[in-house]
Parts: sequence; C-alpha cells; structure tokens
Amino acid sequence: MKTDLKDRGILALSGGLDSCVCAAIASQNYTLSALHVSYGQRTEVREVQSFHAICDHYGISDRLIMDMRHLVEIGGSSLTDRDEPVPVDGIENGVVPSTYVPFRNANILSAAVSWAEVLGATRIFIGVNEMDSSGYPDCTQEFIRRFNAAVDAGTRPETRIEITAPLMEMGKREIVIAGTHLNAPFEKSWSCYTGAETACSVCDSCRLRLKGFLDAGIKDPLPYEK
Amino acid sequence: MKTDLKDRGILALSGGLDSCVCAAIASQNYTLSALHVSYGQRTEVREVQSFHAICDHYGISDRLIMDMRHLVEIGGSSLTDRDEPVPVDGIENGVVPSTYVPFRNANILSAAVSWAEVLGATRIFIGVNEMDSSGYPDCTQEFIRRFNAAVDAGTRPETRIEITAPLMEMGKREIVIAGTHLNAPFEKSWSCYTGAETACSVCDSCRLRLKGFLDAGIKDPLPYEK
Repeated sequence: MKTDLKDRGILALSGGLDSCVCAAIASQNYTLSALHVSYGQRTEVREVQSFHAICDHYGISDRLIMDMRHLVEIGGSSLTDRDEPVPVDGIENGVVPSTYVPFRNANILSAAVSWAEVLGATRIFIGVNEMDSSGYPDCTQEFIRRFNAAVDAGTRPETRIEITAPLMEMGKREIVIAGTHLNAPFEKSWSCYTGAETACSVCDSCRLRLKGFLDAGIKDPLPYEK
Repeated sequence: MKTDLKDRGILALSGGLDSCVCAAIASQNYTLSALHVSYGQRTEVREVQSFHAICDHYGISDRLIMDMRHLVEIGGSSLTDRDEPVPVDGIENGVVPSTYVPFRNANILSAAVSWAEVLGATRIFIGVNEMDSSGYPDCTQEFIRRFNAAVDAGTRPETRIEITAPLMEMGKREIVIAGTHLNAPFEKSWSCYTGAETACSVCDSCRLRLKGFLDAGIKDPLPYEK
C-alpha cells in the first residue's frame, strides 16, 4: 500500500499563469488542497474553468471555491466595477493601477489560513511576485513577511503555518521558464482581464504574459485575438 | 450649514456586548461605517437584529453585511458546526475553546481594511479584548499589532489605516462600566451563543457577560432563562 508521506499544503489558485506555475512547484513536495476565490471579477467563469482544469491536471481533489462578493460591494477596482474600463495602456512604474482590488490578497490569505488551521496544513502557496508584477502593494515580499508574523500570533499555539510565495523573485520570463521545466499546463491557464474565448492581447495582464513568453523564447499555447 | 469634520472610521459590529461598547467609544470621534459578518454562526439572525439596532441608535447609515459562508465550509468550530455542542462548562486558562473560529478576526479585518481603503477611512475599530476573553489567539494585542504592520505594507502607500481595539486591556467588568458611562444601549446587544429569544445564561458567552455585570454592580437589561 502506498502511503502518502507528504505534508498538506494549501494552494491559492486563480487559474492564471503565475498560480499555474505555482501549482507545478507546490505539487512536487506537498499534497495539495486548492482554494479559488470568486469576487465578481470580470473573468470569473473563465477563471473557474482554469481552476478545475489545473486541479484535474495535478490530481487535486480537495477544492474550495469561496464567494467573496463583498469585495464587489466594497468596489474600488476596475476588475470588479463593471463600468470602469480595464486599462490597456501598460504598467507605469510606481503607480498602483486601477485593477488593484484593495487588500485582496489579505482576504484570500486569511481564508487560506483558516482552512490550513482546520486541515492541519503547514504551507500555503500563493503565486504573487514583486518583480514584473502590476505594482500591487499586497504582492510584495514585505507584505507576505509581515502577514506571516500576524499568522504566527493569531492562530493556535500548536499550529505551524507558513505562507510561501515561490515566484516572488521571478520575472515573467523566469516564471515561463520554470513552468516549462516542470511541464506546467500553460494551455489550461488564463490571464486575460476581458474574459473572452480568445485572449485580447492588449490588456495589461495579456501584455505581461505575452512579454514573458516572448522573452523566454517559448510559444504561449493560448489562443489570442490576432 | 453643519459640516462633518470627523474622520471616517469603520466599526466591526457583531452586535455583542463588546462591540456595542466599542460603538459607544468610536462614535465619539469618528463618523462610522459599520461592518457585520455573517458566517453561518448559530446566532446569526439575532446578531443581525442587534447590529441594526445599535446602528440605528448611533445614526450609522452606512452598513455592510458580509457573507463569509466559506468559514462554515471550512468548519472547525462549534460556533459554525451545528452538530458540535456549544460549551457550557466555563473557560479554562490556556486552552483555546471549541467556539474558536480559526483566524476569524483576520478574515473580518481584511475585509474592513479593503473597505477602509475605498472609503478613505483612517481607523478600524474592533471590540476584541485579551483579558477576560475566551483565549482566542486572534483577540490579542500582539496579533493586532502584527496585523497593522501587514496592513501598512499591503495597502496603497498613501493610505493611513490603523486598526484599534479600545477594549483590549479591559476586563468584562471595566467594559460594562465604560459602556454605562457612555450610555451604551446594552439592551440592544446580544451575547448568547444559543440564539434563543431569551439568553441561556449558561453558555460561556453568557457566563462572561453576566459575571461582568455582576462585578460592576449593574443589572444586565437582557432577558435571561430563569
């Protein structure tokens, strides 16, 4: 009988390129439970489809889709406010773009920690990265470090939960290369902010993704509008 | 024309004794928006009733009731698992009781911070207290301090949001006395874990509340069984 000797990990899995590669890394050493957050983002249906496809690929049966619709009620982001346009004019250095959902990752990580405490998981994986990211303050190493300190104080004394962001120091090019080495199922991921059947190729998320594949010299298997 | 010169604050308002007194303190210097979390707790209906009654009392019109049902799906607490009994045998020192909802306050505070960032609020009030509390790790000063550090790193650089827990150092007796001085509407609050029309008087929450009123020499206006 094969016994599962791996520790339990929680994977925050949006279904995008980064979380897809994060899944490839995390599944090497952990038995995973996967968490997806629906918060009324424009691309919700397409993201959930990618979430399940990536879970299937890695044999992750323990899945939780959380409804965080309060993030829509709260508003303040072009990703959740349908009447605010999604930016297509590139990322400016030092400017937090309108797609930023205020403190979103803290909401996701708090739920992940609650789940980890119940399951006895020791690691939480999240695919955020500081370099080549969109300049979101809740995607930084310093935020993750401080949040881990809060987790340590705010959970039962016997729990040992650590949030880890294995892509933190990688640019999009390095992420594509890492995913290629690990045979990450890129074709099952989705990054476009507009949520159509084919990716738009002009929103900031498509631009970052396409540049990553271009710089890595690898072809993105997703279908794009011309 | 009267101009509102107060800063905006967010009040986490469960409807219990502590958050009721916290409302009395916070409303002195802040224009408040109130946040209530429904997470499938046994006492949900009664709590929402108290939430609205206390908001009415303080003229708080900006109210948000957030659905965090994922905390039920995650489980791990007698407050959300209907087949686990609520403890009635008193609080033991150093033991985290079964009513602890894992990392609950981080989930609530993360949403409050998201809302604060959108509204431009500078303060978040939460009625947790370390002394005379039930021993929940996410009710400690150290947790709040570390969470504030994470908020500082994880929000836009221009935001100034601070979570404050004015009852942190108070015991239940001091909370009752403070509420009495500020004319807090105790009769509109609700603390019992069982959620009946009259409070049970034997669950840990009723015990703590009743002892607080007893020690303060003040009569609790709520109706109790026998």
